[in-house]
Amino acid sequence: MESYTVQCQEGTGVRISELSRRSGVSIPTIKFYLREGLLHDGVRTAATQAQYDETHAARLALIRALVGAGGLSLAAASRVLHAIDDPPESMHELLGVAAAAAHPAGDRHPGHDRVHELMREWGWPIEAKDCSSHDELAVALGALDDAGFVLPEGTLDLYKDHMEQIAAHELATVPTESAAAAVRHVVLGTVLPEPLLLILRRMAQHQASARRFG
Amino acid sequence: MESYTVQCQEGTGVRISELSRRSGVSIPTIKFYLREGLLHDGVRTAATQAQYDETHAARLALIRALVGAGGLSLAAASRVLHAIDDPPESMHELLGVAAAAAHPAGDRHPGHDRVHELMREWGWPIEAKDCSSHDELAVALGALDDAGFVLPEGTLDLYKDHMEQIAAHELATVPTESAAAAVRHVVLGTVLPEPLLLILRRMAQHQASARRFG
Repeated sequence: MESYTVQCQEGTGVRISELSRRSGVSIPTIKFYLREGLLHDGVRTAATQAQYDETHAARLALIRALVGAGGLSLAAASRVLHAIDDPPESMHELLGVAAAAAHPAGDRHPGHDRVHELMREWGWPIEAKDCSSHDELAVALGALDDAGFVLPEGTLDLYKDHMEQIAAHELATVPTESAAAAVRHVVLGTVLPEPLLLILRRMAQHQASARRFG
Repeated sequence: MESYTVQCQEGTGVRISELSRRSGVSIPTIKFYLREGLLHDGVRTAATQAQYDETHAARLALIRALVGAGGLSLAAASRVLHAIDDPPESMHELLGVAAAAAHPAGDRHPGHDRVHELMREWGWPIEAKDCSSHDELAVALGALDDAGFVLPEGTLDLYKDHMEQIAAHELATVPTESAAAAVRHVVLGTVLPEPLLLILRRMAQHQASARRFG
């Protein structure tokens, strides 16, 4: 994160070249973000010059987190940034914007009803606006069916229980000192640990295999 | 699975065209599998004709599970099939071949030592032959570092604990009536539930977000 921070004296900004050097974002990219309204304008000091400060550096770091490691498209990052600038009433809605951006909607899937039935069993409220995630669950379950792979009895509920406990911990640790920090944490904290969880599962399977069959 | 089953009377086989029709695998593909030694030859009934039976249909179903839903390359599927035909001493080693095929090795990662340190903390034995999975964990952890995303205190251990419990259940439910069934279950059971786990986590996060911020 060090490289994203622009140190400057109180009241004095830096030029775009210095902002670029210290943030690691190229000048054409910074200009693009300015044109697209993702980054706010600097203070104009001449016809062709402006000065930038800490707030620009922080915003650039957030944009890079969302479109880089967070894997958001520029359009999705733009929606999330605008939601931060003009936040919805509740933090839950704001995080909903972030989560929806991180996993965009696809087409409705025929396995939808089965998912709603599962959610009723699990006591999870069904909200129409979340239908894209219901579809993704339907697709994931359909892939097992297509392969003729039947999850052993109790496995789906067990997966759900563990993911619920993981999610409870994750949400309990979302920082709330600012909307920007919360959204950054939710987008990165959704996407980045995914490979981590999968590789830990596979290594744990290997350990369990050694215990059962080794 | 119905379509993969070739029903035939005792002692009478079917021609390749019928094997193809009932298994849903095209004749050129079946011939390719025969040439590559993935599928055993039929009983020759004429210079250009052979008959195939239940064992061919079962093998085709296994090949399709591995290279289709299991996502193995043909070379990886071939290694797994040869391990089934000429099985190593223990089921653990056989499942190791299957797991390694499902997730091939990459280059060694500099974060290797940190992973070994974690494994020692967790009481997981470190075996040199599993270094490819250690690398993947190093890469996954490195991606968080690169993004400047710090997992909140205790989160990595919590992930590990839950994945350990999931893996213990998964390994306890591996069918052991045949090596082929066990390998099919391990390859498909490793790969197919991955999107399922991730979407369940995301839906659970949404539920947890509603509880915390809703």
